[in-house]
Amino acid sequence: MTNYPSILLSDAVEQMASLPGVGRKTALRLVLHLLRQPDKDVEAFAGALTRLKQEVKYCRVCHTISDQEVCPICQSHSRDKHTVCVVENVQDVMSIENTGQYNGLYHVLGGIISPMDGVGPSDIEIDSLISRVENDDIHEVILALPTTMEGDTTNFYIYKRLQNLSTTPPKISQIARGVAIGNDIEYTDEITLGRSIVNRIEFKI
Amino acid sequence: MTNYPSILLSDAVEQMASLPGVGRKTALRLVLHLLRQPDKDVEAFAGALTRLKQEVKYCRVCHTISDQEVCPICQSHSRDKHTVCVVENVQDVMSIENTGQYNGLYHVLGGIISPMDGVGPSDIEIDSLISRVENDDIHEVILALPTTMEGDTTNFYIYKRLQNLSTTPPKISQIARGVAIGNDIEYTDEITLGRSIVNRIEFKI
Repeated sequence: MTNYPSILLSDAVEQMASLPGVGRKTALRLVLHLLRQPDKDVEAFAGALTRLKQEVKYCRVCHTISDQEVCPICQSHSRDKHTVCVVENVQDVMSIENTGQYNGLYHVLGGIISPMDGVGPSDIEIDSLISRVENDDIHEVILALPTTMEGDTTNFYIYKRLQNLSTTPPKISQIARGVAIGNDIEYTDEITLGRSIVNRIEFKI
Repeated sequence: MTNYPSILLSDAVEQMASLPGVGRKTALRLVLHLLRQPDKDVEAFAGALTRLKQEVKYCRVCHTISDQEVCPICQSHSRDKHTVCVVENVQDVMSIENTGQYNGLYHVLGGIISPMDGVGPSDIEIDSLISRVENDDIHEVILALPTTMEGDTTNFYIYKRLQNLSTTPPKISQIARGVAIGNDIEYTDEITLGRSIVNRIEFKI
């Protein structure tokens, strides 16, 4: 058990070590790094975090983090308003945006259905997705959730709900899973490789 | 280049990524983790860091981080006041304290001499060490600095200064370097192993 020479130091290390993946030794190193920075830098550090927490907004259409009521993607006139890509969180939106391959809208669930963690359909943004599809003339819903039991459950639940709409159900698709580009076949895990054979697509030139 | 959907988010990630060893992806993960915590937890996180920075004190005797003018180690009546262990930083004090094998005092230099980084003898707490030795009846100075060129330079400089005192010079020792306990001989690096042979000590039962 480490004895800190100061309660202020021990408190700061305690807080830093509460971050996921940050152990006590790393926390101490980070805190002492901050302590060596000028006062205004430490204030900027703490300020940016508290400001984010206090002032953060979520787009009321797609629920991504945003500085405005409606995020720039939902506001954009150049995007395909008839396609919605359903993702678990904000990082996923950023990852897909970075590919430059998608021009539709998003819907951030803010989690996935996980009975083990006590997360049910009403804890995440599924009702708002269904009402968007019903009211906003959505032609295609792309499911881009993790390939886990929880992701599959959530996919299935959304699929079922979309079948029971009062309006015509949209096309429902999911992102392709397969051998990653540049990866060797022999080092690909069996489940991914197996699925990439079952779900093979026509070879085109 | 990642486009953050919010300036608040981008600022917070920027700050988090300024910590050493924290990349942008990790920073985003940590920031979004904080965002999921209750308001008061984020305030406690930011508060602990700014409070440390604003209110931190350094012991005026040994220069370690402390909540008081003089740290508990320097104040203690049960410690050997005639022995001073010279270390680079606060972490080193904590590491040596954790061994439970040392009962003397410390002197934290707050750095080591490094011409490459523009750190000279006057930038670190060497003058205060010399005056402690001259005035505080110190019998032994233990050098526990890193085994690097900078550490060796600092050791040598302190040694020289201690030879030129107006009072009788104290005994000067340095911590033992050798094969770590539990380590295999064959996997020990050659420099350490070589030095452990040259500096062998008498076998006693």
